[in-house]
Amino acid sequence: MTTSYKRRRELLRQVMIENNLDGYLVVDPINVSYLTGFNGDDSFLWLGDVDALILSDSRFEEQLKEEAPDVDAAIRVSGQTTYGLLKQGLADGKYTSRTPKRVALEAASTTLDLYGKLCETFSEIEFVPRSSDVETLRCVKDESEITAIRRAIAVSIEAYRSTKRLVGGDATEVDLRDELEYRMRKAGGDDVSFPSIVAYDARAALPHAIPGRAGRLCDANMVLIDWGAKRDYYVGDLTRSYLTEKGASFGSAEYKRKFDEVFKIVLEAHDAAIAAIKPGVVCSDVDAIARNVIKDAGYGEYFGHGLGHGIGRVVHDFGGFSPNAKATLQANMIMTVEPGVYLPGWGGIRIEDDVLVTETGCEILSSSLPVDE
Amino acid sequence: MTTSYKRRRELLRQVMIENNLDGYLVVDPINVSYLTGFNGDDSFLWLGDVDALILSDSRFEEQLKEEAPDVDAAIRVSGQTTYGLLKQGLADGKYTSRTPKRVALEAASTTLDLYGKLCETFSEIEFVPRSSDVETLRCVKDESEITAIRRAIAVSIEAYRSTKRLVGGDATEVDLRDELEYRMRKAGGDDVSFPSIVAYDARAALPHAIPGRAGRLCDANMVLIDWGAKRDYYVGDLTRSYLTEKGASFGSAEYKRKFDEVFKIVLEAHDAAIAAIKPGVVCSDVDAIARNVIKDAGYGEYFGHGLGHGIGRVVHDFGGFSPNAKATLQANMIMTVEPGVYLPGWGGIRIEDDVLVTETGCEILSSSLPVDE
Repeated sequence: MTTSYKRRRELLRQVMIENNLDGYLVVDPINVSYLTGFNGDDSFLWLGDVDALILSDSRFEEQLKEEAPDVDAAIRVSGQTTYGLLKQGLADGKYTSRTPKRVALEAASTTLDLYGKLCETFSEIEFVPRSSDVETLRCVKDESEITAIRRAIAVSIEAYRSTKRLVGGDATEVDLRDELEYRMRKAGGDDVSFPSIVAYDARAALPHAIPGRAGRLCDANMVLIDWGAKRDYYVGDLTRSYLTEKGASFGSAEYKRKFDEVFKIVLEAHDAAIAAIKPGVVCSDVDAIARNVIKDAGYGEYFGHGLGHGIGRVVHDFGGFSPNAKATLQANMIMTVEPGVYLPGWGGIRIEDDVLVTETGCEILSSSLPVDE
Repeated sequence: MTTSYKRRRELLRQVMIENNLDGYLVVDPINVSYLTGFNGDDSFLWLGDVDALILSDSRFEEQLKEEAPDVDAAIRVSGQTTYGLLKQGLADGKYTSRTPKRVALEAASTTLDLYGKLCETFSEIEFVPRSSDVETLRCVKDESEITAIRRAIAVSIEAYRSTKRLVGGDATEVDLRDELEYRMRKAGGDDVSFPSIVAYDARAALPHAIPGRAGRLCDANMVLIDWGAKRDYYVGDLTRSYLTEKGASFGSAEYKRKFDEVFKIVLEAHDAAIAAIKPGVVCSDVDAIARNVIKDAGYGEYFGHGLGHGIGRVVHDFGGFSPNAKATLQANMIMTVEPGVYLPGWGGIRIEDDVLVTETGCEILSSSLPVDE
């Protein structure tokens, strides 16, 4: 494991060299964790041209030794600031061979507060805001990350199945969500990836439905569930939409017909996109393939979001399938594919799977859960 | 309800006037919510000298009408940026009487990314980083906030009781946590306030113990639980430490004696601090009162954190009791009081209650849960 963290830091150091940067101050806890293995927060990583140094406090002393044994850590003592720690670190030739002139900061996670304090403490340094350097590295997963995501998906699927088995007809959306999130924990998840969406009927047409306490499962025709477990710091992200007992059996035949029609279109879009995924393909092209299927079927205006996004340590990892996404796919990226059709006042159908880009195409990591289960 | 949001915006406008600011761009979603009632994210609030404007996107159109009916909202259309929306808003005399020269930004939540884009779009405006303006307003709660926190605490207590009743001797810390977090939802909580701490024996001595899967409840002598539910966007935050069946009955008499001794000291510190809380008292003095009780009993070095913190929309609201906290208490602040003694290798005892500062003293909002339950 240590090797992969070291390798990641080497890749970031390449970015430094290419951009004439003498150091990188990483403050986003997800990025610190990705580059070192240390999973606490409130800690920064200094990446100098020679070596790396974590700036932290005494709460994390033991955890640092355990999780990031190959990286030095400077621990703040009472009355000392993180900036003071960094100053000492910079003076120590072990991390940085010369006085740094240009230092990179993460534009998306460095606050004005932190920036002001850094400029004050290091008046001789030019701080350079940079975007998505570590996030770009994070797009391509290594073996240990793929294993962790497989596990998170397995937990997600197990929890979904036990929830559907256990939940009664009187369950509100909130009840179903609570059961599902509890079952993700019980199935070995450390947490949920994101707040689960559970939506009945017309509420499934809302793009960001928050589970409510009004309707009951036995009165609904259809359910949309968008969920995922987090396991070993990596996430799964799935969606299934299905007819309830009422919708499938004793409800309106017209409703069932419509559901089946829309489901078939969404599934066709999903399958067409997946068939197109392989290294070298431009992300917007994958989006267009799915979008055209839905457009050609006459539902184009009811598919308002991008086709998918990267997943990894967070549920919205960098990159994705959308009409403007000009990046090209590389092997070992993991992305969601999640076309949907949302009909106001009626309901919404989304089918979401997680796929691993392979050398020749892709593997559906969530294939053990049939799309209509 | 509308009136209190309007009043809050008026108070922030006072800060603008006092500091010669022509506008305030609020980006922290908690602060946007506090000032408008709108609980979505990815949206900014422009507070001009005349009126307020929320900058948002189409996902939140319905929610904005429902939650913030008295505030105008500008909805981004495809291809439009938030900065473009803001530019239009500034040109409209309805919100800002004159071209703004000095505009406040929240230093703790404005990123370099956002700052760069703002400077680029509005080259004529001087952006002024400000610290804790809204957070300071948030310290003093109004009636609706106090009611919400009372409710969150009631949910927390109900869940704690049902968990202790239901959980079996083979429960790991993780099992106990999962049950507790499930029960908070079942008791009417919308979410947890923060990841719950459940720690057995020596693990309770770690300041930020993450629940583990190793030890079982029936083998432990003591348990420390730090938890809280979120309800209607406000939180509770409580801690109880207690002897298990083993610790209390058939375990080592020496362990029980030590537990009782330390518990008594922590409780004395807790009670002394609460007795001192009233408007006008300096926060560091309250901290010192509790700290001295523990110090005088010979355990000073084992109480390493501050005595408490504000709670509200987040679990660590602005302000708190610590050796350096020079703020003075005001009526309607709500704070935790949570002294603790942590003995490495043995265990830790913390007693945490939530108190409301009243005109003459304080009310323990969590008094329905005895400290030794």
